Amino acid sequence: MMDTEARLARLEAKDEIRELTARYCHAVTDGDADRIVAFFCRDGVFRAHTSAPKGHDELRAFYQAVAGQTHKPFIQNHVIEFQDEEHATGRCSVEIRVMQDGRAYTQAGHYHDTYRREDGVWRFAERHYHRYHNVPWTEGWQK
Amino acid sequence: MMDTEARLARLEAKDEIRELTARYCHAVTDGDADRIVAFFCRDGVFRAHTSAPKGHDELRAFYQAVAGQTHKPFIQNHVIEFQDEEHATGRCSVEIRVMQDGRAYTQAGHYHDTYRREDGVWRFAERHYHRYHNVPWTEGWQK
Amino acid sequence: MMDTEARLARLEAKDEIRELTARYCHAVTDGDADRIVAFFCRDGVFRAHTSAPKGHDELRAFYQAVAGQTHKPFIQNHVIEFQDEEHATGRCSVEIRVMQDGRAYTQAGHYHDTYRREDGVWRFAERHYHRYHNVPWTEGWQK
Repeated sequence: MMDTEARLARLEAKDEIRELTARYCHAVTDGDADRIVAFFCRDGVFRAHTSAPKGHDELRAFYQAVAGQTHKPFIQNHVIEFQDEEHATGRCSVEIRVMQDGRAYTQAGHYHDTYRREDGVWRFAERHYHRYHNVPWTEGWQK
Repeated sequence: MMDTEARLARLEAKDEIRELTARYCHAVTDGDADRIVAFFCRDGVFRAHTSAPKGHDELRAFYQAVAGQTHKPFIQNHVIEFQDEEHATGRCSVEIRVMQDGRAYTQAGHYHDTYRREDGVWRFAERHYHRYHNVPWTEGWQK
Repeated sequence: MMDTEARLARLEAKDEIRELTARYCHAVTDGDADRIVAFFCRDGVFRAHTSAPKGHDELRAFYQAVAGQTHKPFIQNHVIEFQDEEHATGRCSVEIRVMQDGRAYTQAGHYHDTYRREDGVWRFAERHYHRYHNVPWTEGWQK
């Protein structure tokens, strides 16, 4: 059983981590690669499909390329579990509205996240994007 | 006015109930009927349209049939109210992506939930699904 | 560093503000203009596109007109920052399903909110709706 201080700190950590994922969405929507990168640990990784940029330089290059597609992510269904006071993992669902080749696309999937407290701030140690589908909005998904 | 301990316990209960609904979405998305059923009280009910499976056996049969349709629910707008430290009710909105008859469908609606603490864990005593529409993605809703 | 009481009150305020935005969505979905208006401060403003109704009378007229379109908003990605114990600002993403001219439309955007504690209850001092697109569901967005 945790004491009052530890329980309060745990709730604050969860709140901060949920806002981390919300701030990430806002920065992606705003197309602001520098803001996105700052949400990752110095050795952070974004793992998706075929790429896995690691560290702030690779992440910045990755998100600058993404920024032109105007992704608009919407995160829901967030579960967070703590390993200790500095390490946690989470899963959250995501729907994304995005332009690709001049057409409206919709994506759905979820992130498996690893969070780490670095310099007193919760950041992404790793985001792993599991995509269910990425399809033209006017066509819908096939499986 | 509640004391510090009661206020902290209340926030923890809300956090646990929100994660309960998130875990439910993940288990439905993963098509894991056993995991879904464990989120319900032993006499729990899922009420939707014309059916209302009650208890773990009926719920398991219901969710095993649902699993083949690959529902992907996204829950938002969650409000929780407590009757006492073991009973609460809630309302949350939901959008669902699902395949039906080989086609992409979109649903929207909300759940009226009744939560109960059983064996020290918050579970669904009842989920009542109020569906606004269930339409082919490529057609949209008519009302 | 805040003491235990202040930290607990801060978490409770965040919880109340998140539920405020959820209750707003439910009241809009239910088409209940009186309930919506009660979520605003007496001098509250809803700012969107070309209109900015201010105060309960103007807001009631605005939301009564909106009610007929059966908007269904879904709020996500909520970040809240406090100026002091009675004033806060926030940003949250929103997707809206709505009928317009007898057709299904989808909107996406975000709210920049200003919250104020009035009579001991957190309310909207201002909601400013930044809309990304408002398009027929069957067509998708163009930019």
